[in-house]
Order: sequence, then structure tokens, then C-alpha cells
Amino acid sequence: MHLVELVALLAVVQYLFFAVLVGRARGHYGVKAPAVNGHEGFERIYRVQMNTLELLVALLPALFIAARFWPAAWVAGVGALYLLGRFVYWRAYVDVPSRRGLGFALSMVPVLALLAMALAGAVLR
Amino acid sequence: MHLVELVALLAVVQYLFFAVLVGRARGHYGVKAPAVNGHEGFERIYRVQMNTLELLVALLPALFIAARFWPAAWVAGVGALYLLGRFVYWRAYVDVPSRRGLGFALSMVPVLALLAMALAGAVLR
Amino acid sequence: MHLVELVALLAVVQYLFFAVLVGRARGHYGVKAPAVNGHEGFERIYRVQMNTLELLVALLPALFIAARFWPAAWVAGVGALYLLGRFVYWRAYVDVPSRRGLGFALSMVPVLALLAMALAGAVLR
Repeated sequence: MHLVELVALLAVVQYLFFAVLVGRARGHYGVKAPAVNGHEGFERIYRVQMNTLELLVALLPALFIAARFWPAAWVAGVGALYLLGRFVYWRAYVDVPSRRGLGFALSMVPVLALLAMALAGAVLR
Repeated sequence: MHLVELVALLAVVQYLFFAVLVGRARGHYGVKAPAVNGHEGFERIYRVQMNTLELLVALLPALFIAARFWPAAWVAGVGALYLLGRFVYWRAYVDVPSRRGLGFALSMVPVLALLAMALAGAVLR
Repeated sequence: MHLVELVALLAVVQYLFFAVLVGRARGHYGVKAPAVNGHEGFERIYRVQMNTLELLVALLPALFIAARFWPAAWVAGVGALYLLGRFVYWRAYVDVPSRRGLGFALSMVPVLALLAMALAGAVLR
């Protein structure tokens, strides 16, 4: 098992799952392409996908660079917390956008931890 | 020749080409920054760029992780299908957004295939 | 010191810094999630973050592939120019969006240079 690669791929799968929900919401709420506005129900899940894209771009390089300097099990464990945090974020944002803070923190803190691990490795070793 | 790296770089070049078209459409349709709305012609090409960004973030890690476990020619071949699918998507979306399905499928299926190849490698080997 | 990894991580940190500014601008300008429109001050910093995301997705693969074929100090040096260009872009865009051209060029040209270096390496070596 390649744990770090597995976590990276699961983060991509989770993100594509949110993208599929956006596609379904287009039909459900009648928001026709190229519009990305017009119904708050659509906008919420669209923002979940976009925010996940925004974090994924930070997560993946941090994850792979951290894995060059730290044990794979540690790096994959922190990455797994990110996956969990994103699910919490999704459920909260779709229910009540103003309550997305906890899920956001649960997915942002692992990204910052991996960035710190990667920076420490890149500078000190 | 490093085929996998070449396909990854061509995917980035194709994406930047769409970004250049968005910049030109700003002038052509009179959509001034920071707005990204206001004229459907602009919004169509902007959505092509954004959707390509959304897929590229999934394609690149899937491509490079798949290449660790499978022959470079196979991985690069699937990646080349993605490039073709994105061109079909672009032409269709700009003409008639509702007909973007074929090009979308032609670029999404290779991403899913590379993800499956990468996941199989990361879990089984 | 791992210079290429350091530049990649600093590009991610810079991008997350812009994301934090977007979060603060939500409160400052009263733009409530899931909206990303409604006040030009918010839209400007939001566009800085999005445009940086758009470039980062091109920068990171170009940087790492270029580093396989060229000396790390050259690759990291070009990447450092990108970091500088993004700071210039940010300051200009927030002040006067129409004057963002110089900062954009200062960050886009290094991305294109790294892409050219990576393509030359992938094709010729």
C-alpha cells in the first residue's frame, strides 16, 4: 500500500464527487450553463466544489513534499484528517453556510500542518 | 522523450491557451475586470477555462501516480485522449453550451481511467 | 536546502495568504457566503486569489518537471520571479484593476519560461 498516494487520490475522488453534485444541482435548481448564479441551493454546492479546488491545490504539493521528509504514515494520517474535514464542511455548507467554520478549520489545519512539515523538511534537511 | 511529462505539459499549455482566449474575450465583449459576468459570449469561454482548471487539478496527480505503476505509453495515451476531449468540449461549449456533453465525457473518462489505474497501483502494489 | 521545493511551497503560502485576505474581505465588505459578488472591493481581492490559483496550477507542474532537467538554482530563480510578480499583481489589482498588467506579466513570463524549460527537457532528453 502506498498510503500517501492513496490519500492524494482519495482527495481527488472526493473533489470529483462534489463536482458531480454540482452537475446534478444544475438540473435540480434549473441553473443553465454558463451561469453559476441564480439559485442559492446551487451556489452553495458550487462553492463547496470551488473551495475544495482551492484547498486541493495547496494540499497536494504540501502532501507530496512532506512525504519526502517525514514517515508516510504520519503524512497520510494528517491527509486523512483533511478528507474528514471536507466532508464536515460539505454537509454544514449545504445546510447552513454560516456554520461552515468547523469543517473549514478541520480541513485547513491539516493543509497548514503539511505545509509546515514540508517547509521544515525543505529548509532544514 | 518523456511521454508522461510531455502530456502533462501539453495539458497545461492547452489550459493556458483557453486562459488567453478569456483575456481576449474580456476586450471583445467589454467585460472589465474584476467582473466575470455580463456577456454570455465571455461567460462561455470563461467556463471552458474554469472547467478545464477543475479537471486539470484531478488529471495531473492521477497521471503522475498512474505513471509510477503502469507503462508510460499507456498512461500518456490515455492522457492524449483527455487533450482531444478538451478541444471538442471547447468548440462545442462556445457554439452551443447545451451540446458540451460529448467533449466533457471525452475528457472526463480519461481522468477517471487514470484515477482508477493510479488507485489500483497505490492499493495493490 | 531544497530550493525548488522551497519556491513551490512559498508559492502555495502566498496563494493561501491571498485566500485569507478574501476571507477578511467577506466580513469587511459584507459579502455573505455563498455570494462572490456584490462589492467591487471584495471582487478585486477575490479575482487576485482566483487568478493566482489559475497560474499556480500551471506553475507547479512546470516547476517540478523543469527541475528534472535543469539545475535547481536556475529553476528556483525563475520561480522566485513568479513570487515577486504575484505581489506586484496583487498590489496593483487592489488599487486599480486596469493597471494589473505589469504584475501579471512578471508572474506569467516565469511560468512560460518554466514551461519552455520543462518541454525542452521532456522532448529533447
